[in-house]
Amino acid sequence: MNPKVSIIMGSTSDLPVMEKAAKVLNDFQIPFEINALSAHRTPAEVETFARGAQNRGIEVIIAGAGMAAHLPGVIAAMTPVPVIGVPINSSLDGMDALLAIAQMPPGIPVATTAINGAMNAGILAAQILAVGDPSLKVKILEFKESLKKKIVDANAELSKVKFDYKTN
Amino acid sequence: MNPKVSIIMGSTSDLPVMEKAAKVLNDFQIPFEINALSAHRTPAEVETFARGAQNRGIEVIIAGAGMAAHLPGVIAAMTPVPVIGVPINSSLDGMDALLAIAQMPPGIPVATTAINGAMNAGILAAQILAVGDPSLKVKILEFKESLKKKIVDANAELSKVKFDYKTN
Amino acid sequence: MNPKVSIIMGSTSDLPVMEKAAKVLNDFQIPFEINALSAHRTPAEVETFARGAQNRGIEVIIAGAGMAAHLPGVIAAMTPVPVIGVPINSSLDGMDALLAIAQMPPGIPVATTAINGAMNAGILAAQILAVGDPSLKVKILEFKESLKKKIVDANAELSKVKFDYKTN
Amino acid sequence: MNPKVSIIMGSTSDLPVMEKAAKVLNDFQIPFEINALSAHRTPAEVETFARGAQNRGIEVIIAGAGMAAHLPGVIAAMTPVPVIGVPINSSLDGMDALLAIAQMPPGIPVATTAINGAMNAGILAAQILAVGDPSLKVKILEFKESLKKKIVDANAELSKVKFDYKTN
Amino acid sequence: MNPKVSIIMGSTSDLPVMEKAAKVLNDFQIPFEINALSAHRTPAEVETFARGAQNRGIEVIIAGAGMAAHLPGVIAAMTPVPVIGVPINSSLDGMDALLAIAQMPPGIPVATTAINGAMNAGILAAQILAVGDPSLKVKILEFKESLKKKIVDANAELSKVKFDYKTN
Amino acid sequence: MNPKVSIIMGSTSDLPVMEKAAKVLNDFQIPFEINALSAHRTPAEVETFARGAQNRGIEVIIAGAGMAAHLPGVIAAMTPVPVIGVPINSSLDGMDALLAIAQMPPGIPVATTAINGAMNAGILAAQILAVGDPSLKVKILEFKESLKKKIVDANAELSKVKFDYKTN
Amino acid sequence: MNPKVSIIMGSTSDLPVMEKAAKVLNDFQIPFEINALSAHRTPAEVETFARGAQNRGIEVIIAGAGMAAHLPGVIAAMTPVPVIGVPINSSLDGMDALLAIAQMPPGIPVATTAINGAMNAGILAAQILAVGDPSLKVKILEFKESLKKKIVDANAELSKVKFDYKTN
Amino acid sequence: MNPKVSIIMGSTSDLPVMEKAAKVLNDFQIPFEINALSAHRTPAEVETFARGAQNRGIEVIIAGAGMAAHLPGVIAAMTPVPVIGVPINSSLDGMDALLAIAQMPPGIPVATTAINGAMNAGILAAQILAVGDPSLKVKILEFKESLKKKIVDANAELSKVKFDYKTN
Repeated sequence: MNPKVSIIMGSTSDLPVMEKAAKVLNDFQIPFEINALSAHRTPAEVETFARGAQNRGIEVIIAGAGMAAHLPGVIAAMTPVPVIGVPINSSLDGMDALLAIAQMPPGIPVATTAINGAMNAGILAAQILAVGDPSLKVKILEFKESLKKKIVDANAELSKVKFDYKTN
Repeated sequence: MNPKVSIIMGSTSDLPVMEKAAKVLNDFQIPFEINALSAHRTPAEVETFARGAQNRGIEVIIAGAGMAAHLPGVIAAMTPVPVIGVPINSSLDGMDALLAIAQMPPGIPVATTAINGAMNAGILAAQILAVGDPSLKVKILEFKESLKKKIVDANAELSKVKFDYKTN
Repeated sequence: MNPKVSIIMGSTSDLPVMEKAAKVLNDFQIPFEINALSAHRTPAEVETFARGAQNRGIEVIIAGAGMAAHLPGVIAAMTPVPVIGVPINSSLDGMDALLAIAQMPPGIPVATTAINGAMNAGILAAQILAVGDPSLKVKILEFKESLKKKIVDANAELSKVKFDYKTN
Repeated sequence: MNPKVSIIMGSTSDLPVMEKAAKVLNDFQIPFEINALSAHRTPAEVETFARGAQNRGIEVIIAGAGMAAHLPGVIAAMTPVPVIGVPINSSLDGMDALLAIAQMPPGIPVATTAINGAMNAGILAAQILAVGDPSLKVKILEFKESLKKKIVDANAELSKVKFDYKTN
Repeated sequence: MNPKVSIIMGSTSDLPVMEKAAKVLNDFQIPFEINALSAHRTPAEVETFARGAQNRGIEVIIAGAGMAAHLPGVIAAMTPVPVIGVPINSSLDGMDALLAIAQMPPGIPVATTAINGAMNAGILAAQILAVGDPSLKVKILEFKESLKKKIVDANAELSKVKFDYKTN
Repeated sequence: MNPKVSIIMGSTSDLPVMEKAAKVLNDFQIPFEINALSAHRTPAEVETFARGAQNRGIEVIIAGAGMAAHLPGVIAAMTPVPVIGVPINSSLDGMDALLAIAQMPPGIPVATTAINGAMNAGILAAQILAVGDPSLKVKILEFKESLKKKIVDANAELSKVKFDYKTN
Repeated sequence: MNPKVSIIMGSTSDLPVMEKAAKVLNDFQIPFEINALSAHRTPAEVETFARGAQNRGIEVIIAGAGMAAHLPGVIAAMTPVPVIGVPINSSLDGMDALLAIAQMPPGIPVATTAINGAMNAGILAAQILAVGDPSLKVKILEFKESLKKKIVDANAELSKVKFDYKTN
Repeated sequence: MNPKVSIIMGSTSDLPVMEKAAKVLNDFQIPFEINALSAHRTPAEVETFARGAQNRGIEVIIAGAGMAAHLPGVIAAMTPVPVIGVPINSSLDGMDALLAIAQMPPGIPVATTAINGAMNAGILAAQILAVGDPSLKVKILEFKESLKKKIVDANAELSKVKFDYKTN
């Protein structure tokens, strides 16, 4: 099945962060591809990738990068496909990557997540694909229920924690 | 025509920023609505809004807020519709709003734009709607061409600027 | 005995920080409850909690959260009970949580502590409850004396440290 | 009538910010006093003030200061009365004052508001006084309703704004 | 005469900052060109520019940009010509642009100046061209002397300032 | 009378800030000199100044500079005379200058004041000179009394401010 | 011999940092004392300490503290003796302590060192005491020579490092 | 062979970072020297070094330093040779060094790299030397190709990673 989401990262060292996006897409059974391409070290490959994405049927791009993280913005400049940017913490607690991804100038948006927020990038991609896909919308609602259940279960555990408060 | 995009802001004082999103949607002929609701001052109204959005046919929500900007995240928590968050600069150069919107925990993404980046929020909403809409994709490509033309024209003007360099 | 203080945290992973608040309340013999609820993953439960707090006899709420920490503000928006917010360090040294909790807009205060300052949250809750409770005021004064004693004792130890200064 | 809340500021130049707290207390008909005392320039007066506050019937102290804002913490060190700290923006966008007030060490809490958040300090003082005062609780609920009404009315105005969208 | 230095900026609104670089090059009688091209809005033009620079005889590129300032890094990725990056203050006091330009990953350097430091970019370009050009080295030494003279003259003026110190 | 304190600034544009130090020294009747010398533009003059300071009878140096403020540290490296550094706000709210002055490596201290804190630099110089000068110690105590009086007087004014609180 | 320098820290946990100041004073054979007193937990003891310092012959105070580090400023407010403040890194990389110490308001200077810069605090204290003490001035010059020697020796070692550069 | 590039660092503890620059120059077969000299502890040696560099045939200087990193700027002030500054992370995540190097005042540029970006400093030095050296330009192009190859190879590896996506 042709991939609908393309996950791209500036370096394979970003894989431990970015595979959280892959895992979410996997769970939602959304076909995806995953590649490492650097805005700075392989600009021609990035361009080929970005300019061809729409025609290959890619509907959403998730791009993660650290430091002066140009990859999401550079791709966004070359495709009408919505680009989700994941700032990766490899210096300055990730603040440099957050600003280099979020502070895009007027005209070229990048949908920025939290620092290292690849799981959310995967969910956001699913939400975007669900715009025209009612069955995916149902899955997203189920996913939200499962998040809730985890918290509710954890709280049930928490209520069993004993504090040696005398009057209770 | 039913709105497909809902623009919401924490305070009517955010309108000068947020109407840039409205203008973009207008240009793309995407039906939208625009409202002021505060996560903190009208939480029940926000909940009614967020929980009803999908059923009213809203496909994308654009939420702008300043300071401890909870509005985009609070809405994202209550709907499967993708939420675009616009940090508004009303203190600390907008850094507080950027962090309060972008740094969402795993599970609930908000697609964050630049500080005061409402124009990009509008474009991103259009890109998301274009996922299932080829004619909108064409408009987005035309929009990108128009951005390019502005720069190219401005550069043509720039080339006429005279610097009194003697040897030219 | 009905709890007077409710400790709430965004995730059970916040327990190691938040239990310091529980410990202080325990020491002051103030009845409390402790729960995990997420502003983003269980918004309906948070609302039920916040709207019901006053009627259940809760006089102070202590809410801890990290990243884009919305929990304290979201609760404060739905109850007249004073809310103490504890920013939890889970990214950016806790600066994101500090700003997302402290920078509340006019109308909805959150009494913010230091990053990871749950012990102070417990003390502050006791100070608030002591407003109408002279015997609790006495306990708080005793607590302050015990803090002083620790420093005075530590200083006595310090005076025994030897520095090989020749002329002493 | 004896004041129940004491507003104190490091310099009379802070009055334009701090009088917002006074105004709120005024609206809630809570008796208050307002003074300028500097932790650095009048430490003895600050000590006399802080040590005497409880016996004079002060139930909450609101202290505002800028730069290396020590006033709230210094007062909190000398009284069991809860202290609300208002960071005032007089340099570095107020970030120095925010950190110097919020980052109190374990043992001595200061309930910190937003930068220049004196209005919220007034509301928080009212919420604290309402712990033992049901009629004040009613007033706070009314106040929250009035906040909501302002937003709802503003939204009604907003809905009249015309955007020249062709298809509406 | 063919330009040896190419000044490029992301937007013509950057001209008031960037023309300081032009002025310096003018003073050093170094032939230059000046253009506006956007990494995001005209990526193809930027690529044509960057890939062709060396063959057109460009020896140094000065690139200025604001916000998520990708222009210098994107150009540096596509040419062996040294690239000087000028962060332009258009948001967050220019901190976003500084980080987005300076924090380049290993492999692709950008020689970053101060925020709005276009004058220094011009001087640095001259210093680089002087590597193989003894007569330009002489001019740079003269320039440094002129800087010194300005300070020395200003100090002479300063010594005439009267302070009403009684014993002088 | 020979100057005991030397005020030095990186640029005459810093004079409006730095003359506050001069004014304080004037008030304390401490002989001083004031000069503009740049660590970067007149390094040889700075060296001559720093190396000769002690022999000319200078007991304290006050050095103010902005941006990458090297002047105080460079002087401190070349003299045993204590150096007070004043970070001057000329970019990034003065944060760059504060860090470039305060964060001196082990071995070469600079006594750093607040951003634009030249008045405090003057007072600190007086306090240092008073180490061996009992009559100057008396003046400093009188100065502190005058600071206190200003606050006490201002507070007296403040107490006359009317708030239309009904029950007072 | 009576101490001339008093080292004070907010908590005995600061001793590993602050003893570097003690070591320097030891090396300079300057008599000193070292104590732990907290501005917040033992304010009365701090006041007794600060008000009595001058009469006990203390000529310089070195005060170290972390977080909302009030100790140096609080002491400076109560004595004409010069106070050196050492920001201690116990949260936010020490930035909170740096701002809470350096950003003192006009009137009450604190001579701030680098974060954890206790060694420099000791040297600065020696430089201040040397104002009226020629033999101490000689020792400080010798100390500076020893610093230089360490670097020169280290460089000699460095020159022996082999890089496998072929043409050398 | 006479060195063309001089690598200088403030402390031998910076060697693990700075030797990355040495390695790159080695790979490009560019003769270099490497020394430790401190702007603060050996200012006279720094001056001798900087003033003599040009005459010794040094064409580019790479200077690394941490904290209040003055070394690159101090050297740049005393030579017309272009200076590349490498901010070294030894406190505050390297932000202090970045600002102390990048924020140079008009007149004295330092070509700043990323925090700990010594490898890029070496590449930039090579690019500068290549201005008048066609064979070095060829090597730089080859180097860029090798960077690209690494990414392309890594991507090939990545494509072999298995995600247990059912429908692929």
